[in-house]
Amino acid sequence: MMRKLNDQINFLVEVDKMKQIFRNTILMDKSRKENDAEHTWHMSLAAMTLCEYSNDQAIDMLKVIKMVIIHDIVEIDAGDVFAYGNINLSEKAIKEKKAAKRIFGLLPDGQYKEFLELWNEFEEGASSEAKFAQALDCFMPILHNYRTQGLQWQKLNVTSEMVLKRNKKIELGSNRLWEYIESIVSDAVEKNYLMK
Amino acid sequence: MMRKLNDQINFLVEVDKMKQIFRNTILMDKSRKENDAEHTWHMSLAAMTLCEYSNDQAIDMLKVIKMVIIHDIVEIDAGDVFAYGNINLSEKAIKEKKAAKRIFGLLPDGQYKEFLELWNEFEEGASSEAKFAQALDCFMPILHNYRTQGLQWQKLNVTSEMVLKRNKKIELGSNRLWEYIESIVSDAVEKNYLMK
Repeated sequence: MMRKLNDQINFLVEVDKMKQIFRNTILMDKSRKENDAEHTWHMSLAAMTLCEYSNDQAIDMLKVIKMVIIHDIVEIDAGDVFAYGNINLSEKAIKEKKAAKRIFGLLPDGQYKEFLELWNEFEEGASSEAKFAQALDCFMPILHNYRTQGLQWQKLNVTSEMVLKRNKKIELGSNRLWEYIESIVSDAVEKNYLMK
Repeated sequence: MMRKLNDQINFLVEVDKMKQIFRNTILMDKSRKENDAEHTWHMSLAAMTLCEYSNDQAIDMLKVIKMVIIHDIVEIDAGDVFAYGNINLSEKAIKEKKAAKRIFGLLPDGQYKEFLELWNEFEEGASSEAKFAQALDCFMPILHNYRTQGLQWQKLNVTSEMVLKRNKKIELGSNRLWEYIESIVSDAVEKNYLMK
Protein backbone atom coordinates (compact mmCIF):
# COMPACT_ATOMS: atom_id res chain seq x y z
CA MET A 1 0.00 0.00 0.00
CA MET A 2 2.72 2.48 1.03
CA ARG A 3 4.91 1.31 -1.89
CA LYS A 4 2.04 1.86 -4.32
CA LEU A 5 1.33 5.42 -3.18
CA ASN A 6 5.06 6.21 -3.20
CA ASP A 7 5.31 5.06 -6.83
CA GLN A 8 2.35 7.27 -7.77
CA ILE A 9 3.91 10.26 -5.99
CA ASN A 10 7.25 9.67 -7.72
CA PHE A 11 5.42 9.74 -11.05
CA LEU A 12 3.75 13.06 -10.11
CA VAL A 13 7.14 14.48 -9.13
CA GLU A 14 8.82 13.31 -12.37
CA VAL A 15 6.17 14.89 -14.62
CA ASP A 16 6.77 18.30 -13.04
CA LYS A 17 9.34 18.55 -15.87
CA MET A 18 6.45 19.21 -18.30
CA LYS A 19 6.55 22.80 -17.01
CA GLN A 20 9.97 23.25 -18.58
CA ILE A 21 9.27 21.75 -22.01
CA PHE A 22 8.77 24.79 -24.23
CA ARG A 23 6.86 24.77 -27.52
CA ASN A 24 6.86 26.97 -30.61
CA THR A 25 3.54 28.51 -29.59
CA ILE A 26 3.60 32.03 -28.11
CA LEU A 27 1.27 33.14 -25.30
CA MET A 28 -1.63 35.34 -26.43
CA ASP A 29 0.06 38.34 -24.73
CA LYS A 30 3.16 37.64 -26.93
CA SER A 31 5.48 37.66 -23.89
CA ARG A 32 7.08 34.23 -24.21
CA LYS A 33 6.76 30.65 -25.44
CA GLU A 34 4.17 28.34 -23.91
CA ASN A 35 5.19 25.15 -22.11
CA ASP A 36 3.62 21.70 -22.31
CA ALA A 37 1.87 21.89 -18.92
CA GLU A 38 0.19 25.18 -19.88
CA HIS A 39 -0.77 23.89 -23.33
CA THR A 40 -2.26 20.76 -21.80
CA TRP A 41 -4.37 22.66 -19.28
CA HIS A 42 -5.64 25.01 -21.98
CA MET A 43 -6.47 22.06 -24.24
CA SER A 44 -8.36 20.24 -21.45
CA LEU A 45 -10.46 23.37 -20.90
CA ALA A 46 -11.06 23.58 -24.68
CA ALA A 47 -12.27 19.96 -24.56
CA MET A 48 -14.81 20.92 -21.86
CA THR A 49 -15.87 24.08 -23.69
CA LEU A 50 -16.08 22.79 -27.28
CA CYS A 51 -17.31 19.20 -26.74
CA GLU A 52 -20.60 19.90 -28.50
CA TYR A 53 -18.69 20.21 -31.80
CA SER A 54 -17.36 16.65 -31.78
CA ASN A 55 -18.54 14.80 -34.92
CA ASP A 56 -19.43 11.88 -32.67
CA GLN A 57 -22.00 13.15 -30.19
CA ALA A 58 -21.82 9.97 -28.09
CA ILE A 59 -18.19 10.62 -27.20
CA ASP A 60 -16.86 9.60 -23.73
CA MET A 61 -15.71 12.97 -22.35
CA LEU A 62 -13.89 11.51 -19.33
CA LYS A 63 -11.74 9.50 -21.74
CA VAL A 64 -11.12 12.54 -23.98
CA ILE A 65 -10.01 14.68 -21.04
CA LYS A 66 -7.78 11.93 -19.57
CA MET A 67 -6.14 11.51 -22.99
CA VAL A 68 -5.56 15.24 -23.21
CA ILE A 69 -4.04 15.37 -19.70
CA ILE A 70 -1.41 12.73 -20.52
CA HIS A 71 -0.89 13.25 -24.28
CA ASP A 72 2.35 15.25 -24.13
CA ILE A 73 4.06 13.65 -21.12
CA VAL A 74 6.37 11.70 -23.47
CA GLU A 75 7.91 15.03 -24.51
CA ILE A 76 9.76 15.11 -21.16
CA ASP A 77 12.17 12.64 -22.81
CA ALA A 78 11.40 13.04 -26.51
CA GLY A 79 11.08 16.86 -26.69
CA ASP A 80 8.59 19.00 -28.57
CA VAL A 81 8.76 18.78 -32.35
CA PHE A 82 8.13 21.72 -34.71
CA ALA A 83 4.85 20.96 -36.46
CA TYR A 84 6.02 22.19 -39.86
CA GLY A 85 9.59 20.90 -39.75
CA ASN A 86 11.10 17.94 -41.58
CA ILE A 87 10.23 15.34 -39.02
CA ASN A 88 11.62 11.82 -39.14
CA LEU A 89 8.34 10.24 -38.09
CA SER A 90 9.63 6.74 -37.32
CA GLU A 91 12.48 8.12 -35.21
CA LYS A 92 10.01 10.36 -33.35
CA ALA A 93 7.66 7.40 -32.75
CA ILE A 94 10.49 5.24 -31.38
CA LYS A 95 11.65 7.98 -29.01
CA GLU A 96 8.12 8.63 -27.78
CA LYS A 97 7.28 4.96 -27.22
CA LYS A 98 10.45 4.59 -25.17
CA ALA A 99 9.52 7.70 -23.16
CA ALA A 100 5.99 6.40 -22.54
CA LYS A 101 7.41 3.14 -21.20
CA ARG A 102 9.87 4.88 -18.90
CA ILE A 103 7.57 7.59 -17.53
CA PHE A 104 4.25 5.71 -17.27
CA GLY A 105 6.39 2.77 -16.07
CA LEU A 106 6.97 4.67 -12.81
CA LEU A 107 3.31 3.94 -11.95
CA PRO A 108 1.94 0.75 -10.35
CA ASP A 109 1.24 -2.00 -12.92
CA GLY A 110 -2.52 -1.49 -13.43
CA GLN A 111 -2.15 2.25 -13.88
CA TYR A 112 0.89 1.86 -16.13
CA LYS A 113 -1.24 -0.27 -18.45
CA GLU A 114 -4.20 2.18 -18.29
CA PHE A 115 -2.13 5.30 -19.04
CA LEU A 116 -0.09 3.58 -21.78
CA GLU A 117 -3.27 2.36 -23.47
CA LEU A 118 -4.81 5.83 -23.31
CA TRP A 119 -1.67 7.34 -24.83
CA ASN A 120 -1.54 4.67 -27.57
CA GLU A 121 -5.20 5.28 -28.38
CA PHE A 122 -4.53 9.02 -28.69
CA GLU A 123 -1.50 8.44 -30.93
CA GLU A 124 -3.34 5.99 -33.19
CA GLY A 125 -6.21 8.45 -33.62
CA ALA A 126 -8.72 5.77 -34.59
CA SER A 127 -11.40 6.16 -31.88
CA SER A 128 -13.87 9.07 -31.77
CA GLU A 129 -12.28 10.22 -28.51
CA ALA A 130 -8.78 10.25 -30.01
CA LYS A 131 -10.00 12.06 -33.15
CA PHE A 132 -11.57 14.83 -31.07
CA ALA A 133 -8.54 15.11 -28.77
CA GLN A 134 -6.20 15.30 -31.78
CA ALA A 135 -8.44 17.95 -33.33
CA LEU A 136 -8.02 20.10 -30.20
CA ASP A 137 -4.25 19.52 -30.20
CA CYS A 138 -4.12 21.03 -33.71
CA PHE A 139 -6.76 23.69 -33.04
CA MET A 140 -5.11 25.44 -30.09
CA PRO A 141 -1.76 26.42 -31.70
CA ILE A 142 -3.59 27.84 -34.74
CA LEU A 143 -5.76 29.93 -32.43
CA HIS A 144 -2.62 31.18 -30.66
CA ASN A 145 -0.98 32.08 -33.95
CA TYR A 146 -4.07 33.86 -35.23
CA ARG A 147 -4.52 35.85 -32.00
CA THR A 148 -0.84 36.89 -31.99
CA GLN A 149 -1.11 38.21 -35.58
CA GLY A 150 0.89 35.29 -36.93
CA LEU A 151 4.04 36.00 -34.92
CA GLN A 152 5.42 32.45 -35.13
CA TRP A 153 3.98 31.74 -38.60
CA GLN A 154 6.07 34.62 -39.91
CA LYS A 155 9.17 33.81 -37.91
CA LEU A 156 9.12 30.19 -39.05
CA ASN A 157 8.07 30.85 -42.68
CA VAL A 158 4.81 28.96 -42.44
CA THR A 159 2.28 29.31 -45.31
CA SER A 160 -1.51 28.91 -45.29
CA GLU A 161 -1.11 25.83 -47.46
CA MET A 162 1.12 24.25 -44.80
CA VAL A 163 -1.35 25.10 -42.03
CA LEU A 164 -4.31 23.64 -43.90
CA LYS A 165 -2.46 20.50 -45.00
CA ARG A 166 -0.86 19.75 -41.63
CA ASN A 167 -4.07 20.27 -39.65
CA LYS A 168 -6.68 18.77 -41.93
CA LYS A 169 -7.19 15.95 -39.46
CA ILE A 170 -9.16 18.43 -37.30
CA GLU A 171 -12.00 17.57 -39.71
CA LEU A 172 -11.95 13.93 -38.57
CA GLY A 173 -12.81 15.02 -35.03
CA SER A 174 -14.96 18.07 -35.75
CA ASN A 175 -16.32 19.44 -39.03
CA ARG A 176 -17.41 22.59 -37.23
CA LEU A 177 -13.99 23.36 -35.75
CA TRP A 178 -12.38 22.67 -39.13
CA GLU A 179 -14.72 25.19 -40.80
CA TYR A 180 -13.71 27.70 -38.14
CA ILE A 181 -10.02 27.05 -38.80
CA GLU A 182 -10.54 27.48 -42.56
CA SER A 183 -12.21 30.82 -41.91
CA ILE A 184 -9.49 32.19 -39.62
CA VAL A 185 -6.70 30.95 -41.89
CA SER A 186 -8.33 32.77 -44.80
CA ASP A 187 -8.71 35.91 -42.63
CA ALA A 188 -5.07 35.59 -41.51
CA VAL A 189 -3.93 35.60 -45.16
CA GLU A 190 -6.06 38.66 -45.86
CA LYS A 191 -4.59 40.47 -42.87
CA ASN A 192 -1.01 39.46 -43.82
CA TYR A 193 -0.50 37.42 -40.65
CA LEU A 194 0.22 34.41 -42.85
CA MET A 195 1.70 33.90 -46.34
CA LYS A 196 -0.60 32.40 -48.94
CA MET B 1 -24.30 29.25 -34.18
CA MET B 2 -21.34 31.39 -35.28
CA ARG B 3 -21.98 33.80 -32.39
CA LYS B 4 -21.99 30.91 -29.92
CA LEU B 5 -18.66 29.49 -31.11
CA ASN B 6 -17.15 32.99 -31.16
CA ASP B 7 -18.15 33.50 -27.51
CA GLN B 8 -16.58 30.18 -26.55
CA ILE B 9 -13.36 31.08 -28.41
CA ASN B 10 -13.23 34.49 -26.72
CA PHE B 11 -13.48 32.72 -23.35
CA LEU B 12 -10.58 30.40 -24.31
CA VAL B 13 -8.52 33.43 -25.37
CA GLU B 14 -9.28 35.34 -22.13
CA VAL B 15 -8.23 32.46 -19.86
CA ASP B 16 -4.78 32.36 -21.50
CA LYS B 17 -3.98 34.86 -18.72
CA MET B 18 -3.88 31.92 -16.25
CA LYS B 19 -0.36 31.26 -17.60
CA GLN B 20 0.79 34.56 -16.06
CA ILE B 21 -0.78 34.21 -12.61
CA PHE B 22 2.14 33.13 -10.42
CA ARG B 23 1.78 31.30 -7.11
CA ASN B 24 3.99 30.92 -4.05
CA THR B 25 4.82 27.34 -5.03
CA ILE B 26 8.25 26.68 -6.55
CA LEU B 27 8.82 24.13 -9.34
CA MET B 28 10.41 20.85 -8.20
CA ASP B 29 13.66 21.89 -9.95
CA LYS B 30 13.65 25.08 -7.80
CA SER B 31 14.08 27.31 -10.86
CA ARG B 32 11.04 29.59 -10.52
CA LYS B 33 7.48 30.01 -9.24
CA GLU B 34 4.68 27.92 -10.71
CA ASN B 35 1.74 29.54 -12.48
CA ASP B 36 -1.96 28.68 -12.22
CA ALA B 37 -2.17 26.90 -15.59
CA GLU B 38 0.73 24.60 -14.66
CA HIS B 39 -0.67 23.97 -11.17
CA THR B 40 -4.07 23.12 -12.63
CA TRP B 41 -2.67 20.65 -15.14
CA HIS B 42 -0.59 18.95 -12.45
CA MET B 43 -3.60 18.76 -10.15
CA SER B 44 -5.80 17.25 -12.89
CA LEU B 45 -3.16 14.55 -13.43
CA ALA B 46 -3.03 13.98 -9.65
CA ALA B 47 -6.83 13.51 -9.71
CA MET B 48 -6.43 10.79 -12.38
CA THR B 49 -3.52 9.15 -10.56
CA LEU B 50 -4.78 9.25 -6.97
CA CYS B 51 -8.55 8.76 -7.43
CA GLU B 52 -8.51 5.40 -5.62
CA TYR B 53 -7.76 7.26 -2.36
CA SER B 54 -10.98 9.29 -2.35
CA ASN B 55 -12.98 8.55 0.82
CA ASP B 56 -16.05 8.24 -1.38
CA GLN B 57 -15.36 5.43 -3.82
CA ALA B 58 -18.46 6.21 -5.88
CA ILE B 59 -17.11 9.63 -6.86
CA ASP B 60 -17.90 11.09 -10.33
CA MET B 61 -14.39 11.51 -11.78
CA LEU B 62 -15.51 13.57 -14.80
CA LYS B 63 -17.00 16.10 -12.40
CA VAL B 64 -13.87 16.12 -10.21
CA ILE B 65 -11.59 16.75 -13.21
CA LYS B 66 -13.85 19.46 -14.66
CA MET B 67 -13.89 21.20 -11.25
CA VAL B 68 -10.12 21.02 -11.10
CA ILE B 69 -9.74 22.43 -14.64
CA ILE B 70 -11.77 25.55 -13.82
CA HIS B 71 -11.11 25.99 -10.07
CA ASP B 72 -8.49 28.76 -10.31
CA ILE B 73 -9.77 30.74 -13.32
CA VAL B 74 -11.19 33.41 -10.98
CA GLU B 75 -7.58 34.26 -10.02
CA ILE B 76 -7.19 36.03 -13.38
CA ASP B 77 -9.09 38.90 -11.75
CA ALA B 78 -8.80 38.11 -8.03
CA GLY B 79 -5.12 37.04 -7.91
CA ASP B 80 -3.49 34.19 -6.01
CA VAL B 81 -3.63 34.47 -2.22
CA PHE B 82 -0.84 33.29 0.11
CA ALA B 83 -2.23 30.24 1.93
CA TYR B 84 -0.71 31.17 5.31
CA GLY B 85 -1.26 34.94 5.16
CA ASN B 86 -3.82 37.04 7.01
CA ILE B 87 -6.58 36.67 4.48
CA ASN B 88 -9.76 38.73 4.61
CA LEU B 89 -11.98 35.83 3.62
CA SER B 90 -15.15 37.77 2.89
CA GLU B 91 -13.26 40.26 0.70
CA LYS B 92 -11.59 37.37 -1.14
CA ALA B 93 -14.98 35.68 -1.65
CA ILE B 94 -16.55 38.85 -3.05
CA LYS B 95 -13.66 39.40 -5.48
CA GLU B 96 -13.76 35.79 -6.65
CA LYS B 97 -17.53 35.72 -7.14
CA LYS B 98 -17.28 38.87 -9.25
CA ALA B 99 -14.46 37.30 -11.27
CA ALA B 100 -16.45 34.11 -11.83
CA LYS B 101 -19.38 36.13 -13.16
CA ARG B 102 -17.20 38.16 -15.51
CA ILE B 103 -15.05 35.35 -16.89
CA PHE B 104 -17.57 32.47 -17.07
CA GLY B 105 -20.03 35.13 -18.27
CA LEU B 106 -18.11 35.28 -21.56
CA LEU B 107 -19.58 31.84 -22.35
CA PRO B 108 -23.00 31.12 -23.88
CA ASP B 109 -25.79 31.02 -21.26
CA GLY B 110 -26.04 27.25 -20.70
CA GLN B 111 -22.31 26.86 -20.32
CA TYR B 112 -22.04 29.94 -18.10
CA LYS B 113 -24.50 28.30 -15.73
CA GLU B 114 -22.70 24.92 -15.87
CA PHE B 115 -19.22 26.35 -15.20
CA LEU B 116 -20.45 28.71 -12.46
CA GLU B 117 -22.26 25.85 -10.71
CA LEU B 118 -19.18 23.64 -10.89
CA TRP B 119 -17.05 26.43 -9.43
CA ASN B 120 -19.59 27.14 -6.67
CA GLU B 121 -19.71 23.44 -5.81
CA PHE B 122 -15.90 23.35 -5.56
CA GLU B 123 -15.85 26.45 -3.34
CA GLU B 124 -18.57 25.17 -1.04
CA GLY B 125 -16.71 21.88 -0.58
CA ALA B 126 -19.83 19.97 0.45
CA SER B 127 -20.05 17.23 -2.21
CA SER B 128 -17.68 14.24 -2.33
CA GLU B 129 -16.29 15.52 -5.63
CA ALA B 130 -15.54 18.96 -4.18
CA LYS B 131 -13.96 17.44 -1.06
CA PHE B 132 -11.61 15.31 -3.14
CA ALA B 133 -10.76 18.20 -5.50
CA GLN B 134 -10.04 20.50 -2.52
CA ALA B 135 -7.87 17.78 -0.96
CA LEU B 136 -5.74 17.73 -4.12
CA ASP B 137 -5.54 21.53 -4.19
CA CYS B 138 -3.98 21.41 -0.69
CA PHE B 139 -1.91 18.27 -1.36
CA MET B 140 0.09 19.50 -4.36
CA PRO B 141 1.73 22.60 -2.80
CA ILE B 142 2.81 20.57 0.27
CA LEU B 143 4.38 17.98 -2.05
CA HIS B 144 6.21 20.79 -3.89
CA ASN B 145 7.47 22.26 -0.63
CA TYR B 146 8.62 18.88 0.66
CA ARG B 147 10.41 18.01 -2.58
CA THR B 148 12.19 21.39 -2.65
CA GLN B 149 13.48 20.89 0.91
CA GLY B 150 11.02 23.46 2.30
CA LEU B 151 12.34 26.37 0.22
CA GLN B 152 9.15 28.45 0.45
CA TRP B 153 8.21 27.24 3.94
CA GLN B 154 11.48 28.71 5.19
CA LYS B 155 11.29 31.88 3.14
CA LEU B 156 7.75 32.59 4.34
CA ASN B 157 8.23 31.48 7.99
CA VAL B 158 5.71 28.66 7.82
CA THR B 159 5.59 26.15 10.72
CA SER B 160 4.43 22.50 10.76
CA GLU B 161 1.52 23.55 12.97
CA MET B 162 0.39 26.03 10.30
CA VAL B 163 0.67 23.40 7.54
CA LEU B 164 -1.32 20.81 9.49
CA LYS B 165 -4.01 23.27 10.60
CA ARG B 166 -4.45 24.94 7.20
CA ASN B 167 -4.62 21.66 5.27
CA LYS B 168 -6.59 19.42 7.60
CA LYS B 169 -9.50 19.48 5.17
CA ILE B 170 -7.50 17.03 3.02
CA GLU B 171 -8.88 14.44 5.47
CA LEU B 172 -12.45 15.22 4.39
CA GLY B 173 -11.59 14.13 0.84
CA SER B 174 -9.04 11.42 1.54
CA ASN B 175 -7.91 9.84 4.83
CA ARG B 176 -5.08 8.10 3.01
CA LEU B 177 -3.66 11.29 1.48
CA TRP B 178 -3.96 13.05 4.84
CA GLU B 179 -1.93 10.26 6.50
CA TYR B 180 0.69 10.72 3.79
CA ILE B 181 0.82 14.48 4.43
CA GLU B 182 1.17 13.92 8.17
CA SER B 183 4.10 11.60 7.53
CA ILE B 184 5.96 13.97 5.16
CA VAL B 185 5.34 16.99 7.41
CA SER B 186 6.83 15.04 10.32
CA ASP B 187 9.79 14.02 8.13
CA ALA B 188 10.21 17.63 6.96
CA VAL B 189 10.49 18.79 10.60
CA GLU B 190 13.07 16.08 11.30
CA LYS B 191 15.10 17.15 8.25
CA ASN B 192 14.85 20.84 9.16
CA TYR B 193 12.90 21.72 6.00
CA LEU B 194 10.14 23.06 8.24
CA MET B 195 9.97 24.67 11.68
CA LYS B 196 8.08 22.74 14.35
